[in-house]
Amino acid sequence: MPILVMKFGGTSVATPDRIRRAAKRVGVEVAKGYDVIVIVSAMAGETNKLVGYVNETSPLYDAREYDAIVSSGENVTAGLMALTLQEMDVPARSWQGWQVPVKTNSAHASARIEEIPTGNITAKFGEGMRVAVVAGFQGVSPEGRITTLGRGGSDTTAVAFAAAFGAERCDIYTDVDGVYTTDPRIASKARKLDRIAFEEMLELASLGAKVLQTRSVELAMRYKVKLRVLSSFEEQSDEAGTLVCDEEEVMENRPVSGIAYSRDEAKMTLVSVADRPGIAAAIFGPLAEAGVNVDMIIQNIAEAGRTDMTFSCPVDQVKRAEKALNDAKAAGHINFHDLIADTDVAKISAVGIGMRSQSGVAAKMFRTLSDEGINIKVIATSEIKISVLIDRKYMELAVQALHDAFELEKAG
Amino acid sequence: MPILVMKFGGTSVATPDRIRRAAKRVGVEVAKGYDVIVIVSAMAGETNKLVGYVNETSPLYDAREYDAIVSSGENVTAGLMALTLQEMDVPARSWQGWQVPVKTNSAHASARIEEIPTGNITAKFGEGMRVAVVAGFQGVSPEGRITTLGRGGSDTTAVAFAAAFGAERCDIYTDVDGVYTTDPRIASKARKLDRIAFEEMLELASLGAKVLQTRSVELAMRYKVKLRVLSSFEEQSDEAGTLVCDEEEVMENRPVSGIAYSRDEAKMTLVSVADRPGIAAAIFGPLAEAGVNVDMIIQNIAEAGRTDMTFSCPVDQVKRAEKALNDAKAAGHINFHDLIADTDVAKISAVGIGMRSQSGVAAKMFRTLSDEGINIKVIATSEIKISVLIDRKYMELAVQALHDAFELEKAG
Repeated sequence: MPILVMKFGGTSVATPDRIRRAAKRVGVEVAKGYDVIVIVSAMAGETNKLVGYVNETSPLYDAREYDAIVSSGENVTAGLMALTLQEMDVPARSWQGWQVPVKTNSAHASARIEEIPTGNITAKFGEGMRVAVVAGFQGVSPEGRITTLGRGGSDTTAVAFAAAFGAERCDIYTDVDGVYTTDPRIASKARKLDRIAFEEMLELASLGAKVLQTRSVELAMRYKVKLRVLSSFEEQSDEAGTLVCDEEEVMENRPVSGIAYSRDEAKMTLVSVADRPGIAAAIFGPLAEAGVNVDMIIQNIAEAGRTDMTFSCPVDQVKRAEKALNDAKAAGHINFHDLIADTDVAKISAVGIGMRSQSGVAAKMFRTLSDEGINIKVIATSEIKISVLIDRKYMELAVQALHDAFELEKAG
Repeated sequence: MPILVMKFGGTSVATPDRIRRAAKRVGVEVAKGYDVIVIVSAMAGETNKLVGYVNETSPLYDAREYDAIVSSGENVTAGLMALTLQEMDVPARSWQGWQVPVKTNSAHASARIEEIPTGNITAKFGEGMRVAVVAGFQGVSPEGRITTLGRGGSDTTAVAFAAAFGAERCDIYTDVDGVYTTDPRIASKARKLDRIAFEEMLELASLGAKVLQTRSVELAMRYKVKLRVLSSFEEQSDEAGTLVCDEEEVMENRPVSGIAYSRDEAKMTLVSVADRPGIAAAIFGPLAEAGVNVDMIIQNIAEAGRTDMTFSCPVDQVKRAEKALNDAKAAGHINFHDLIADTDVAKISAVGIGMRSQSGVAAKMFRTLSDEGINIKVIATSEIKISVLIDRKYMELAVQALHDAFELEKAG
């Protein structure tokens, strides 16, 4: 029988009642003839509670124990989901990560799945079982210890199972009904996309759209897993939600598919840096060591052997960045006149695979912002993305104006 | 290094603070030179919460899923205890049942431990680890599924580890400071016993003293594991608590060691049963099938081919017993004139290995109750126990009077 993977996030399994609702969705797919692999998260709030215990116990915790502790929430949901399906007369059983086994590397707290042997579950499907409920987010290391895949890791579990079992599709049930052209809380005209390309979803995920874990999208792209994002709180048809798929399957033909934003950015400028070969490494090496996530980088044209270097990072890393740079200056590794932090900026990004073939997207974006009187502080581009830093107070206005300018409210 | 097993119950690990307190106790034993195996229960309330979820989901649950769900609480405590010990610079790690592995049979929800291979943990002790923290209550079946040992099963885990590793002692830390001559809430003169024989503890445990799981005492007796019950809420010396040990090691020499009681008993009488060979089987077979836990049984002298049959059972099983017996009568398997249930009785038991060698214990017990005007309804005796059923309203009085009569407030 064809296999379908269905993943339910924390809010979709927050109570026994909600688990029942999710199980009914599973039952619908079983009735259609699918053998289903269900991946479950912990009940909403459980993982945070466990992480809280760990932090209270040991601020610099042993990640192996952290994993053993925080993985337990998913085990509870998996068992409850299996029981609920059994109550509905759907033959089901639960699997914990080590029972499959979901083999990962030993990078505790952010492990990578290396192999999912399909034998155990396939054998049970052969015996008449219709649903395998698997605890998401967890695996087992070569040393036989429990690992976890990082926050949101159940998405990755789901995609990895879909790839391993050659599933027809991987449905991610969540608390939103799909991927939107932008955040509906900011732009009321935001429209749900029927389809979005893997590459676009990847950019949106890494830009902070919380719909899918970035790594799950990478994995889906690599193994060509058809990924669907849809709401567990609405009646669903086969066309519901947003399908994340290959570029070729995206019907719409528009330069921009979505507008993303990131509120808490900071722009830092090293004024009048002595310009010499290796200066970038001398600046960004210490920042990386200090754990500063540098995003956009701009180097102005050098004059008389000196240059200005600007970069952006999350606003809560500014103190750390300042310390790292001042330490490097004190140690004589770099030389600059001043270090200026602008902590009132936001990042706005336009994302779309259509940019590759359509010119004028950047120009249109800059003109739109200019028409609204919004000054652009930093620009960075990739093949399918244009990002700008602007004053934070214009963030909502910029998102709305760009959404209008690219007519995202209209289906392509 | 000698090995010590320390078990902490749910109230002793109810919060990260209490886990810290328990970890300090472990640290004291490590400092003395012991390699320690710590067995932990779930944080108080967790297992009940999980059992509640199961019952809400599926009243007639699949015990395999029940076990997968309810075992998760212990995993959390084991990890937190390991982290806490690491914070105290005590080399420690956690083990879940399947990681040891604790091999059990497949009797889910009340599994029996069959084997505990010591290799994995012994190897880590050899590498300098000082404390192995093991999640209690759980194991793994031959089919690779998680099993649990029944409520209170962590006691049994602790004793089984002590037996497997040849531990010098097994300390059970709980919310009482030892085993008492009777319930201090009923008899203020109740005295903590320094030592008690395995056989006595076994009788007390099966009579409802909630200090230790019955099976853990059986196991300790069989493998000669020195078992100590003590409080995790008091400063402890080596002499604290109560040592459960071989008869020969019990110094006290008295006929009775403790008075136990069970409040919610019922006495049922089948009046004028047709007496014939096999009649007891015809009565008690259907009761067993109906899940009625029959305790005491008395058959009166038969007259003219008919007899009265009396038995006791927990009061909440009376309805089930009545149905089973009336069904058996309707089916023609047994014949009786009347079925009388007395649901206002309590059971009082005097327990002591000294009874074997000292006569007159029963006579003294009956006389004491008679002096208080308490009528005895049923009597049952074993080698080291005398139990009587009396009206429930006299229960406290009977316990106090017997405690006085056998002078249990005085050390032997």
